[in-house]
Amino acid sequence: MFIVENVKDIREIVKREKRDGKKIGFVPTMGYLHEGHLSLIRRAKEENDFVVVSVFVNPTQFCAGEDFETYPRSLERDSKLAQSAGADILFNPSAKEMYPNGYKTDVVVNEITDKLCGASRPGHFKGVTTVVCKFFNIVQPDRAYFGQKDAQQVVVIEQMVKDLNMDLEIVPCPIVREEDGLALSSRNTYLNEKERKAGLILSKSLFAAKDMIENGERDAIKIKDFIIKNISNEPMANIDYVEVVSAENLEDIKKLQGDVLIALAVKIGKTRLIDNIRIKIS
Amino acid sequence: MFIVENVKDIREIVKREKRDGKKIGFVPTMGYLHEGHLSLIRRAKEENDFVVVSVFVNPTQFCAGEDFETYPRSLERDSKLAQSAGADILFNPSAKEMYPNGYKTDVVVNEITDKLCGASRPGHFKGVTTVVCKFFNIVQPDRAYFGQKDAQQVVVIEQMVKDLNMDLEIVPCPIVREEDGLALSSRNTYLNEKERKAGLILSKSLFAAKDMIENGERDAIKIKDFIIKNISNEPMANIDYVEVVSAENLEDIKKLQGDVLIALAVKIGKTRLIDNIRIKIS
Repeated sequence: MFIVENVKDIREIVKREKRDGKKIGFVPTMGYLHEGHLSLIRRAKEENDFVVVSVFVNPTQFCAGEDFETYPRSLERDSKLAQSAGADILFNPSAKEMYPNGYKTDVVVNEITDKLCGASRPGHFKGVTTVVCKFFNIVQPDRAYFGQKDAQQVVVIEQMVKDLNMDLEIVPCPIVREEDGLALSSRNTYLNEKERKAGLILSKSLFAAKDMIENGERDAIKIKDFIIKNISNEPMANIDYVEVVSAENLEDIKKLQGDVLIALAVKIGKTRLIDNIRIKIS
Repeated sequence: MFIVENVKDIREIVKREKRDGKKIGFVPTMGYLHEGHLSLIRRAKEENDFVVVSVFVNPTQFCAGEDFETYPRSLERDSKLAQSAGADILFNPSAKEMYPNGYKTDVVVNEITDKLCGASRPGHFKGVTTVVCKFFNIVQPDRAYFGQKDAQQVVVIEQMVKDLNMDLEIVPCPIVREEDGLALSSRNTYLNEKERKAGLILSKSLFAAKDMIENGERDAIKIKDFIIKNISNEPMANIDYVEVVSAENLEDIKKLQGDVLIALAVKIGKTRLIDNIRIKIS
């Protein structure tokens, strides 16, 4: 596996592979890779001939007061893990390489970026769509892999790809969880032992809601209220949002039907965690 | 030459050509082709193996109260002219094909879109960059050709391509003029005989300013004032703007040096005309 830092270099390498008829899989990450990322890389390797993993803590998707400075970083660790999972290239550009002096352009997906995480993180998705658009143009992958943990991100990226006629396939991949249910996240490293335990309330509430639905509950408000009540019982937890929406367009629903997304964001101490489940109701 | 209406079809055709190693030239237009457009198509044909011309009167780049409804259209005329100039494909999508129900995404170049035409046509350049981004993703050209008459558009498109790491070359091409100096424009068809004559004041003022500069004038304000005075002498003319800026970044300049753009927009009756000259000062 090679580590590449320049747009020009990665472009040349990928073009050579594409000329040989190889299919390119791409996994964009902010690094500090965990088993969730690795599952994306493995899947990309299974489905493509050549896999590019980007590691870039994108400054423009952090809002004021967020954890850009402290976000965990370790290129050495990431490069070992990415290689072990099957990456052929690790693309690790500098912020200056991505946003040189005089940079002026944004890619904006409207409406669906105003709710859920978008409501509490203004500008976040504009940063995400812009950097992902750039990566897609640089890497020109056949398929790009995103974790379903960032459920809204997946919907937003799919919308961008469709709207801007980008010629690639987005492959959403299942959430990977610790044995006790906690969804994997690079931000889990922020949690101390007590917070780590308290953080279980996210997945526990979602799983309990799933049980309710499997037992016939179809009222979105009841599901939402149940989860809010459940999480509120955890003294260390502060709810940012709990939403029951259509998994396809993130629109609010009253009655559960079709493809349903239950998504939530909760602060445990200073750490903001997100989690979700997606349920198909026939 | 084939006329293609669907994204899927044009993409298949272009991919087949690219697989054969052919270079793709692209000329995006709003149709009602004139000699200016044809010069772009001929140049594209000279420099590439396969030329796609799009004809699409893009609704999103017209502002409220502008001439979207009345903008001249004639596919029959355009297809004959495009073919005669060497186009291999004329891409003529519907608005619904380009912006299907639920469309949500914009590409925005900031700052340089706020001045000149951007100041009097709010949202215009957002419409332009978004549709051009879409066309680039659909056609995946090696080179795209734009007329220098829309000088600001060229600068904005070049900025977008650079910022979003789009993998193609932008080729700006010289303004084509009538014998008497009037810059070609599909909107010239709006002018009656008197207005047509009055419209000459744009190019005449620019050429006179060029003479001043060639005779040593380096004061941008003097040039600007001279042009404004000149145009104000034409009773049918109403100035929208006259600007003397850097041709590279559209920033205001006081002293003429380097690559200078003198750009103006003037209403003759109800018709808004634009024109410009670019002068390199060593």
